[in-house]
Amino acid sequence: MKVLVVGGDGFCGWPTALHLSARGMDVALVDNFSRRRIDRQIGSASLTPIVSMEERLATWQALRGRALDFTELDLAQDYESLCTLLTHLAPDAIVHFAEQRSAPYSMRSPATKRYTVQNNLAATHNLLCALVEIGLDAHVVHLGTMGVYGYGGTDAPIPEGYLPVRVSNAQGQWIEREILHPTDPGSVYHMTKAQDQLLFAFYNKNDGLRITDLHQGIVWGTQTAETKLDERLVNRFDYDGDYGTVLNRFLMQAAVGHPLTVHGTGGQTRAFIHIQDTVRCIELALTSPPRSGERVRIMNQITETHRVRDLAALVAQQTGAAVRFLPNPRREAPENELRADGRRLQELGLTPTTLSAGLMQEVHEIARRHAARCDLRKIPSTVRWRQDEGEAPAVAVA
Amino acid sequence: MKVLVVGGDGFCGWPTALHLSARGMDVALVDNFSRRRIDRQIGSASLTPIVSMEERLATWQALRGRALDFTELDLAQDYESLCTLLTHLAPDAIVHFAEQRSAPYSMRSPATKRYTVQNNLAATHNLLCALVEIGLDAHVVHLGTMGVYGYGGTDAPIPEGYLPVRVSNAQGQWIEREILHPTDPGSVYHMTKAQDQLLFAFYNKNDGLRITDLHQGIVWGTQTAETKLDERLVNRFDYDGDYGTVLNRFLMQAAVGHPLTVHGTGGQTRAFIHIQDTVRCIELALTSPPRSGERVRIMNQITETHRVRDLAALVAQQTGAAVRFLPNPRREAPENELRADGRRLQELGLTPTTLSAGLMQEVHEIARRHAARCDLRKIPSTVRWRQDEGEAPAVAVA
Repeated sequence: MKVLVVGGDGFCGWPTALHLSARGMDVALVDNFSRRRIDRQIGSASLTPIVSMEERLATWQALRGRALDFTELDLAQDYESLCTLLTHLAPDAIVHFAEQRSAPYSMRSPATKRYTVQNNLAATHNLLCALVEIGLDAHVVHLGTMGVYGYGGTDAPIPEGYLPVRVSNAQGQWIEREILHPTDPGSVYHMTKAQDQLLFAFYNKNDGLRITDLHQGIVWGTQTAETKLDERLVNRFDYDGDYGTVLNRFLMQAAVGHPLTVHGTGGQTRAFIHIQDTVRCIELALTSPPRSGERVRIMNQITETHRVRDLAALVAQQTGAAVRFLPNPRREAPENELRADGRRLQELGLTPTTLSAGLMQEVHEIARRHAARCDLRKIPSTVRWRQDEGEAPAVAVA
Repeated sequence: MKVLVVGGDGFCGWPTALHLSARGMDVALVDNFSRRRIDRQIGSASLTPIVSMEERLATWQALRGRALDFTELDLAQDYESLCTLLTHLAPDAIVHFAEQRSAPYSMRSPATKRYTVQNNLAATHNLLCALVEIGLDAHVVHLGTMGVYGYGGTDAPIPEGYLPVRVSNAQGQWIEREILHPTDPGSVYHMTKAQDQLLFAFYNKNDGLRITDLHQGIVWGTQTAETKLDERLVNRFDYDGDYGTVLNRFLMQAAVGHPLTVHGTGGQTRAFIHIQDTVRCIELALTSPPRSGERVRIMNQITETHRVRDLAALVAQQTGAAVRFLPNPRREAPENELRADGRRLQELGLTPTTLSAGLMQEVHEIARRHAARCDLRKIPSTVRWRQDEGEAPAVAVA
């Protein structure tokens, strides 16, 4: 199977490309290096030292004898080159990670709100439009997010994409329908993923494009079997207030002796998945594509749910770190339940990596090993969801 | 009340600006003249001779002694100027027509699909983002479309924005909820209006923006009380395959002795509204704005529903025109029912202009009067919804 990974230099894209290559797929990558550019813009950097794409590819080639084709290309900006590349490569499938993926960054300023909307929707739409224009029946696998749903549903588990409902007919009888699950995104970033769903539904209905949308939980961990093989293959690890995900931030904070920063009561329940499971899920989605004529296939890419304060307590217990509660910059309920159905990927063969002490140790070792690279000033989250809510508090550096 | 009409040079925008000015509101206009540019691009033109914006404004000033402030500005492209203008004007309300509004044009080519997505979403998002950035609590009145819903629901009338449903909780009990009505857009254009709804919902929830979204039916007619006052105030009348709306196309075809072109069986049922009622609805929406903290207010801006073949029969009967059935370029059900609730605007004071013979005569007179300006080659609809469905048939010119 020939697979094109767009956004192949990112936190999920890079380990996915290596994983698929290791599984014998013929993998090509596209990236515009926007994530590295944003690092420079906001003065942050991956805790792990990541090398250039050129060196990443040469290392993989030397270690495994497998070439990864790479093209620097901005999907949102350069539609003609995208068409040319797709025509030339003619991939069987495209894994679409080419979107700005941080909620805090998307709320940072008018410019980042506008960039997130413009970039994410143009990248997705250009890809779909190009497939139709060149007549390529490639399976599109897109990384969505559980965050499209918000956290205010019933106590029933969030189903995988489509929700059975009862609606009234003209006679007042309640009849059963299945609808695309309503969305309630909590940031501009999450909103673009909800808008993506409408793009997918339309291009699937009108043009028969075959699409799988994977609503992923919060990713934790850094390394996969392939990125561990050589230091030059290491995955990026973000710990800053914009791009660091909650559990990785806690592990980093513990490693450098910083209090674990919990926003609000920590009563937010979120879905999680390990990066090793992310790459496996992509493989599973690729190897069981939708049939021609099938509606958009939606799966919840999650393995477990946790409350943020419970995660903080777990990390504190294992490391002796203090926990500090800070005001929550997000506009969200202080406490929420979250249940979600994630059976489909497990039925396809996913064996979940659970949040066991051993795996936390692994991540902790990444954090401690590179602690000297940590810029403590980048730890606080300074983005405010609304301008009128005052400066988000900077946490004192330990 | 100070009102800014963005898209104020268009088919709905221009008569709205005059109507609001005539009602005593302090009206400013913005446009980027994209509609006139697209006319040149596709070689079409308004049947009615429309003069320059400068002459339109001077005429209104001379007739009514009321100045309309005008700024040439592209909302989608020039965010900084938009912020400057909004800060300077500080309008109480903004009427948002600044979107590409033709479904066939949006399906014409990859370039027009991409333009429609980029333009419409950037225009809407820039407007909302700017209001938040400058802290202006202006009421946004947006022209949506009934087409966001598609035509496959139950036989119950489409409610105004929010649909009561029953969903299951964890115990399998069906509990009542109210959700944003699911969408099923039939073109890229309609899809952008469905995506707009997600922008509105987010900015309303996160930033408290006050927004009214008016899901309009197909507009017919040309003139309003104000555009009739002087030839230089005349509204545009589109009859071409891309921008002409169905009833206006029939009237034009009858006027020039062309067969009335019905696509498919003509069994499509659509909602309609006269342009005079459009401008009245905007006024009604403006004068009863949502309260602070209220969710997005959604109203169906329609007055009646008709089957396309019934409209053709009615026009044929009055004019002696022939009716010709052609293959349907759209991907849609050949026949559909449509019922929709349009009570809210009537409760606010709308008295519907119905499709009576008298009003058809008025439009017919516009068509016949300017028949010499008609380019018969522009009548056929040549856009195909899918590339693999062959060339849309050109109708023989009578």
